[in-house]
Amino acid sequence: MTGFGVFSDGRGARRVGWRDGVDIVDLSGLGDLFSRPSLNALLAAGHDGWRQALAAAPTHDGPRVPLEEAVLHLPFDVADYVDFYSSLEHATNMGRLFRPGLEPLLPNWRFLPVAYHGRAGTIVVSGTDVVRPAGQVKAPDDELPSFAPSSRLDIELELGFVVGVPSDGGPVPPERFAEHVFGVVLVNDWSARDIQAWEYVPLGPFLGKSFRTSISAWVTPLALLEECRVQAPEQSPPPLPYLSGGRDWALDVDLEVDLNGTVVSRGNARTLYWTMPQQLAHATSNGATIRTGDLMASGTISGPAPGSEGSLIELTRNGAEPLRLRDGSERAFLEDGDEVVLRGRAGEVELGEVRGRILPAA
Amino acid sequence: MTGFGVFSDGRGARRVGWRDGVDIVDLSGLGDLFSRPSLNALLAAGHDGWRQALAAAPTHDGPRVPLEEAVLHLPFDVADYVDFYSSLEHATNMGRLFRPGLEPLLPNWRFLPVAYHGRAGTIVVSGTDVVRPAGQVKAPDDELPSFAPSSRLDIELELGFVVGVPSDGGPVPPERFAEHVFGVVLVNDWSARDIQAWEYVPLGPFLGKSFRTSISAWVTPLALLEECRVQAPEQSPPPLPYLSGGRDWALDVDLEVDLNGTVVSRGNARTLYWTMPQQLAHATSNGATIRTGDLMASGTISGPAPGSEGSLIELTRNGAEPLRLRDGSERAFLEDGDEVVLRGRAGEVELGEVRGRILPAA
Repeated sequence: MTGFGVFSDGRGARRVGWRDGVDIVDLSGLGDLFSRPSLNALLAAGHDGWRQALAAAPTHDGPRVPLEEAVLHLPFDVADYVDFYSSLEHATNMGRLFRPGLEPLLPNWRFLPVAYHGRAGTIVVSGTDVVRPAGQVKAPDDELPSFAPSSRLDIELELGFVVGVPSDGGPVPPERFAEHVFGVVLVNDWSARDIQAWEYVPLGPFLGKSFRTSISAWVTPLALLEECRVQAPEQSPPPLPYLSGGRDWALDVDLEVDLNGTVVSRGNARTLYWTMPQQLAHATSNGATIRTGDLMASGTISGPAPGSEGSLIELTRNGAEPLRLRDGSERAFLEDGDEVVLRGRAGEVELGEVRGRILPAA
Repeated sequence: MTGFGVFSDGRGARRVGWRDGVDIVDLSGLGDLFSRPSLNALLAAGHDGWRQALAAAPTHDGPRVPLEEAVLHLPFDVADYVDFYSSLEHATNMGRLFRPGLEPLLPNWRFLPVAYHGRAGTIVVSGTDVVRPAGQVKAPDDELPSFAPSSRLDIELELGFVVGVPSDGGPVPPERFAEHVFGVVLVNDWSARDIQAWEYVPLGPFLGKSFRTSISAWVTPLALLEECRVQAPEQSPPPLPYLSGGRDWALDVDLEVDLNGTVVSRGNARTLYWTMPQQLAHATSNGATIRTGDLMASGTISGPAPGSEGSLIELTRNGAEPLRLRDGSERAFLEDGDEVVLRGRAGEVELGEVRGRILPAA
């Protein structure tokens, strides 16, 4: 496991660390950028700073802290959070579930990477418990909505990138992606499907997502992912010129979803239709600026093979085909006490896991 | 005009000021909360701190700076930005335009205050120019989308509230609204209708809004609006219990939209169907926390009377009935060089205006 994160002993100051197996190497001796309570200063340092940090961290002889004795903190202050919808298979699966009998992909999907803004203030670090949200729900057969704990609590397996260097307001074309982006995290975009289904027209997801989003404690620098860069799947039709680059930025990252000790999904990030540089180019194409700490996530990553879907609603065909876990129990959606772990591996590089346990509704 | 803001002379440090007519009273002599580059420390001070500030500011004999010599800055660091859709008349007008022949209000609208997250990082202070955004557009008759400057650039007249005191993760019921909320600003949620129309299914508005959102330079404390609090319009059906309070928080604030010197719309915020306490109760009903600096805006405020609509798309019936301005020219949507000013007045209290001029696409 290799990446930068923020840790403490639970009492003393937070500082930047480098994950090395079951240890954390305390990097605070490396200078001012590393003795801070977040990675934001390092993120803002830009390409030369990132290169120096990555050259120094793995061999730094600072104090080693066993992971089990450390408290891990949110690694960076999240500025804006954008969530894309970039998996062709996920968008197709969701279209079939929500608009049966109609063309599953909406007309815009192949022309632009669809996205929405999420809630930055409820992003938490891996290991944080997730309280089951309550909200307004209305099943198709209900005459009226009611307020109740979600009974269709789900996960979304995603890969997110973290902006380091702000833009000046001009678009960031795909070719300039790596000048602005520091690295990646895994993301679990917890989703209350029943709240979402009732609220989401016409302005998109809100409370069905905003209760909590979990990310890795460790940010893996892009430079460590060079060897897993591959060509993305062919796009048809070809995208407009402002989105035509960045196709050599698919990431060959094996992914898995672990539910209470049973791996219930295995996929790979390389199947994504829209790449990270295309996502960033689109998000800035209207002149919107980006800031240090912006998090942009892929959307649920589902592959073409059965068992590679990145959400329970897809894996269980909307709950109709529950998963069987190792302990013999079945799951359509998450139950109180369930623990979900997302994992990702790019060759020798293991991404930071995303772990979360469901607590009963408050 | 009365409210707190942040100003400088363009070279020296930013500090907190109180707007008094055509002057700004420099409050930095009042202590640490007021010698900062944003209102966030004051926002976080809570009810007692707000009361003390409001007692001291109007009579403080600090230096007076003529408004015309000051540079006004974004008054607070925006945490998350939520935009509601709380005007019955606006939602009805938009439904008629976008889904002709169908029931204009979607089934959820009368049961919950529909909302989405916007982009916090592109919120700017009144007076900042707005560059016409470009983006993917596809007119109904076009076979394929193209990338072009927006030709349907619009405004949205909104009232927003600013969170001071964070929540602990539990819902904030309507009765506790005033413990958490410091004050209000006017908001112009600039909208590129052509970009929005093509991108917004199924996840809501993204680039059609995210290029820029303008807010007042002055935040008006809730305490100054006590005299304009009135009962909100009756709701049918009655809302669920978690949304049933806060109906005595409609605000009798006269609003106007000025386009190049012609007032093209006159409305009032008291017509909003969902009140601010209901909006906050809904936004936190799933356990989502709120932070100092969260901005939650009403959505476009349109009234029942012709000429009280808060957007050009409504005022001009989707461009079919252009407005005639004082100089004889006509406007369906905004042209380069146009200047829009939003104004609001609650009895003797004038809210900070929101001014913005359109620059040609980059």
